[in-house]
Amino acid sequence: SVNPDLDSERQTASFSMEKLTALLDGGAEQTRIRRAVVEAIESDPVFGRENQYFQTQNERYEAAVRKAVHLQKKMHEMGWSENGPEYKYIYRALSGDVAFLLHRVFMRSISVLGSDKQIAKWIPLATQHRLIGSYAQTELGHGTYLQGLETTAVFDTATQEFILNTPKISAMKWWPGDMGRSATHTVVFAQLYVHGKCFGIHPFIVQIRSLQDHSLCPGITAGDIGPKMNFEHIDNGYLLLKDVRIPRENMLSKFCEVRPDGTYVRQGSQKINYFTMTTVRISLISDEVLTPLMKACTIAIRYSVVRRQSMLKPGEQEAKILDYQTQQEKLLPQLAAAYAFHFINNYLQELFNRGYREIQRKKFDMLPELHALSSGFKAVITQHCTAGVEICLRACGGHGYSLLSGLPSLYTKILASCIYEGENTILLLQTARFLIKCFMAASAGQPVPPSVTYLAAVKHGNCPAKNKLDFLSPDIYTEAYQHVAVRLTSSTAAKLQDLIQSGVKKHDAWNQCTVQLVQAAKAHCHYIAVKNFAETVEKLETEAGIQKIMKHLCDLFALHGIFSNTGAFLHDGYTSAAQMDVVTASYLDLLAVIRKDAVPLVDAFDFTDKSLNSALGSYDGQVYQRLYEWAQKSPTNQMSPAYERYLKPLLHNTLSKL
Amino acid sequence: SVNPDLDSERQTASFSMEKLTALLDGGAEQTRIRRAVVEAIESDPVFGRENQYFQTQNERYEAAVRKAVHLQKKMHEMGWSENGPEYKYIYRALSGDVAFLLHRVFMRSISVLGSDKQIAKWIPLATQHRLIGSYAQTELGHGTYLQGLETTAVFDTATQEFILNTPKISAMKWWPGDMGRSATHTVVFAQLYVHGKCFGIHPFIVQIRSLQDHSLCPGITAGDIGPKMNFEHIDNGYLLLKDVRIPRENMLSKFCEVRPDGTYVRQGSQKINYFTMTTVRISLISDEVLTPLMKACTIAIRYSVVRRQSMLKPGEQEAKILDYQTQQEKLLPQLAAAYAFHFINNYLQELFNRGYREIQRKKFDMLPELHALSSGFKAVITQHCTAGVEICLRACGGHGYSLLSGLPSLYTKILASCIYEGENTILLLQTARFLIKCFMAASAGQPVPPSVTYLAAVKHGNCPAKNKLDFLSPDIYTEAYQHVAVRLTSSTAAKLQDLIQSGVKKHDAWNQCTVQLVQAAKAHCHYIAVKNFAETVEKLETEAGIQKIMKHLCDLFALHGIFSNTGAFLHDGYTSAAQMDVVTASYLDLLAVIRKDAVPLVDAFDFTDKSLNSALGSYDGQVYQRLYEWAQKSPTNQMSPAYERYLKPLLHNTLSKL
Repeated sequence: SVNPDLDSERQTASFSMEKLTALLDGGAEQTRIRRAVVEAIESDPVFGRENQYFQTQNERYEAAVRKAVHLQKKMHEMGWSENGPEYKYIYRALSGDVAFLLHRVFMRSISVLGSDKQIAKWIPLATQHRLIGSYAQTELGHGTYLQGLETTAVFDTATQEFILNTPKISAMKWWPGDMGRSATHTVVFAQLYVHGKCFGIHPFIVQIRSLQDHSLCPGITAGDIGPKMNFEHIDNGYLLLKDVRIPRENMLSKFCEVRPDGTYVRQGSQKINYFTMTTVRISLISDEVLTPLMKACTIAIRYSVVRRQSMLKPGEQEAKILDYQTQQEKLLPQLAAAYAFHFINNYLQELFNRGYREIQRKKFDMLPELHALSSGFKAVITQHCTAGVEICLRACGGHGYSLLSGLPSLYTKILASCIYEGENTILLLQTARFLIKCFMAASAGQPVPPSVTYLAAVKHGNCPAKNKLDFLSPDIYTEAYQHVAVRLTSSTAAKLQDLIQSGVKKHDAWNQCTVQLVQAAKAHCHYIAVKNFAETVEKLETEAGIQKIMKHLCDLFALHGIFSNTGAFLHDGYTSAAQMDVVTASYLDLLAVIRKDAVPLVDAFDFTDKSLNSALGSYDGQVYQRLYEWAQKSPTNQMSPAYERYLKPLLHNTLSKL
Repeated sequence: SVNPDLDSERQTASFSMEKLTALLDGGAEQTRIRRAVVEAIESDPVFGRENQYFQTQNERYEAAVRKAVHLQKKMHEMGWSENGPEYKYIYRALSGDVAFLLHRVFMRSISVLGSDKQIAKWIPLATQHRLIGSYAQTELGHGTYLQGLETTAVFDTATQEFILNTPKISAMKWWPGDMGRSATHTVVFAQLYVHGKCFGIHPFIVQIRSLQDHSLCPGITAGDIGPKMNFEHIDNGYLLLKDVRIPRENMLSKFCEVRPDGTYVRQGSQKINYFTMTTVRISLISDEVLTPLMKACTIAIRYSVVRRQSMLKPGEQEAKILDYQTQQEKLLPQLAAAYAFHFINNYLQELFNRGYREIQRKKFDMLPELHALSSGFKAVITQHCTAGVEICLRACGGHGYSLLSGLPSLYTKILASCIYEGENTILLLQTARFLIKCFMAASAGQPVPPSVTYLAAVKHGNCPAKNKLDFLSPDIYTEAYQHVAVRLTSSTAAKLQDLIQSGVKKHDAWNQCTVQLVQAAKAHCHYIAVKNFAETVEKLETEAGIQKIMKHLCDLFALHGIFSNTGAFLHDGYTSAAQMDVVTASYLDLLAVIRKDAVPLVDAFDFTDKSLNSALGSYDGQVYQRLYEWAQKSPTNQMSPAYERYLKPLLHNTLSKL
């Protein structure tokens, strides 16, 4: 039975939840396919996650391996293939709780970096699981800066082999997933040396464990890097190489080859190579970043209409905590952001698909823009969504702090997304470098890519809004965001030039501007996100109710951004203090409007109870009952040796009748 | 051997670290006592924490109980008493990793709320550990709002007993520490009913487990609430009461008593009672909030001078990451905040001691101010320090995400401080209520407490600063902070009045202002923190080198606050855009200045390697070696059944020579 406090929220929805779900999925047919996958996975007990919060790292790892092996069988049974429409929903339905994800990266790197001969040899073996692959790039001493990797691969002409070594401890491979305990093979990135000359970083296929008994191969030291904040199910590993010899054919050689005599040959364009990083950054947004935020919003908002605390009106029943303005101000902007980033993800996907088609026709013009947008949005979205999940967690008070709420594990997992696939600050500086370059080009009248043409059109004048209603006009707020992005980019470009002209060396000048460059990159992404949300709402060809609530969310997303960062808009007087007061009033009004549809808006994300795995967030809202039931299953409710060992002697030493 | 990259940082310290440590401790003698306690604790293997990151919740609990029992012995051996000068350092030296903390709360509540007779009976029993106490206030359905608690205690005149019940699931006690598995007794807060009339919440001593065999007493259901984000070592528990009868004498009756005939008598002033909450909120700041931030700064800053990544100057060695402006901008403001809050903690302690002396003389005038300051600062400091620890964690990239860095557990633990002892938003609103009241009184010419007299002196005019140097003047920035606090309080008071005058009901009007009220409360605390830091630096009677670096930190704390919140200062034109650009320039300059002394400034916190328990933060900076050594000890590097069960069948099914 559904908690009446939750049920009543659903009765007053201003739109059709089912239609909004279809919109989010990209059509009703997609919704149908997704639900079928979820149903098939969740009805299979092998994929169960109900004990997850009670398991040790070892138990999590074993479960993930079991699931990965079982998934092969399941896919065969269900007739799902890697190219089928179901495939993209499987990982989401498993909540990522499965091993051998790096096996796919291993395969992709061979497909992208290997010669046709190498692809023909290795891909079938990997597909049939005759080996388990991993991907060994990051070292203890190097993550972001690939050129600094220290592992070496020296070519020995006599034996036609590469000799791989870890010359010092900082060169040890560290972090590769599936490598700590599972993988038999991995792709090692190492500095290539031929005849004493270094040719830089190259990829090599290395076998690390026996296919017979899984023992480590000669010269290999490998293991698990130990406990992490999350990802207990993944055996992130370390790898030390000592004079490990591999045949010449094991260097992945689509772009570079070492001939038998040691001649180094570079062939083809490596440009497409950079495209891979772009692909990964865009592809992680949906499953690794948006889904956790959507889940956190679902949990926190459902809980906030079931939890009653304190008196809002004297003499009445205690109020639902979502009726407090401060609670609305915590949660509803996160909900708006989840929608905003869902739509920007669609935008990036489309852009990416167009880029991919062009690249296949050997046109590389879009690459810099794609790189800048994927880097910037990876950073901005992961940062924003991580903060959002934390806000949801804190907004649930003590119960949010229990692992049983599901929120702590969402948080500790999404946090990693700020670091992997490019540390966020580094990525924002790459976006900033692109912005500065384009701003200079635009200022000199040269053409620039579409997403940054606005930098050329520096407009003067102030924000024309006169009242609350004006600030609900997308033209007004989009223009304000654009103004801020242009101002931050142009003022930082000016500072950079001033420093250089005053004699500061280029790299020092750049370093002295980086705090502001990061601000400019964020402002650029924020502007595009607002603009894209507004354009998406404009084009919505669905029922009026949905367009209306999406418009409210778009307004909230935009006004929340201004309200939380008023200085950027006030700085040069573009927005006046009086206008800012109107923004604040308008923003606070919107909270109360969206609050009415808050539950339907999270219901539309369409998460099952099993996928939320939360005692606070279930569809029926029976929070307290479930917390109690789940707690009773905890291993901490089994008999502890602490009583016999410590408590009994303590108490009995002095026992007397009380 | 110390890593030379770390060692070189210590050679150039601009001040005496030993003297700064003494300043932080409150004198060289205190430093001596603290170090003696730390030495005694850390040299005792029972108190070791080296396996902590590998242990399950059950293992953590058992270790904490073992330590608690051993601590009794240790204190006896060392001649430490609860009133001795060593006592306050014990908990810190144990990093809080010990059981029976609620036993002390149990004792304190009896001392404060019990009659002389009750104190005479129970305190000796507790002191001698003839029972283990807990404190059962929070329920599944109620935390913040004590009046809403649902547990009942009905007086039965016939048997002279109270009958305690959990009338519904939301009334179950939930969260009390030490209650899940250890406690034999607890203080239960329940709604008192006599002859069918409710007299509100009162405290009752209830035995929950047998002193003979630790089995649950009749009518008691109790257990552990399961896994949490941290505090694995504490058995936070649940408690269901079914017709549990306790003698009339077990209601704590210093302030209220039920006579044998059922007459309810209230006696004495309960005002001192509120003082207890104030005490707890102030006392948690040092150990639970400042220490974790100081540890996080130590770890992140030491790591940032050992980690080298990417080229800052072309052709040179890779740069220490602390030489990047963006890294400085992440870490150094946290360091400044740690010092700022250390000094505000001293200020609050002094104020509290004065208040305590006054209360003992039955003068209660200071209570509202003390309550407002302790609530506001509890919220502001926990929030700021939690965010600070998270920034430190993220600033260490992938290695910060490993539990072995020590940072994840610092973060997941400090996060709870935003929730316990008063949820932060609720606390800020209490401070805001005090501010509004005082602002109205001051506007009407009535006297107000010292910390808020500034609200009366609304000055007009703008910030007089003309150049960078002016913004390093404490008068200039303190005045700016004051201006913002006054503006936010007065404008919100005006909004509140306008709403009420326009016919909105008082409670609705209050709710509609709460987002802004929270801002006002924060601004008030921020102003006092800046003012207090500046005054502390002014008065420093130590060597010039220390005063100079403290002045830099004070400037950084103040300017970082302006830089991160420019809108508040720009809003009404108090600070102009041109002035704000000067603030930014001055702030960025300061980062480079403080960076030089960053390592000595964290060394002065004087944490031992054992207390940091971090592979990244040790005194010798041998980061990579230690990560590798520690990882090898992880239970995940033991043989896993996953190979035989899943991997072998998978690989052997299709085994062939590769």
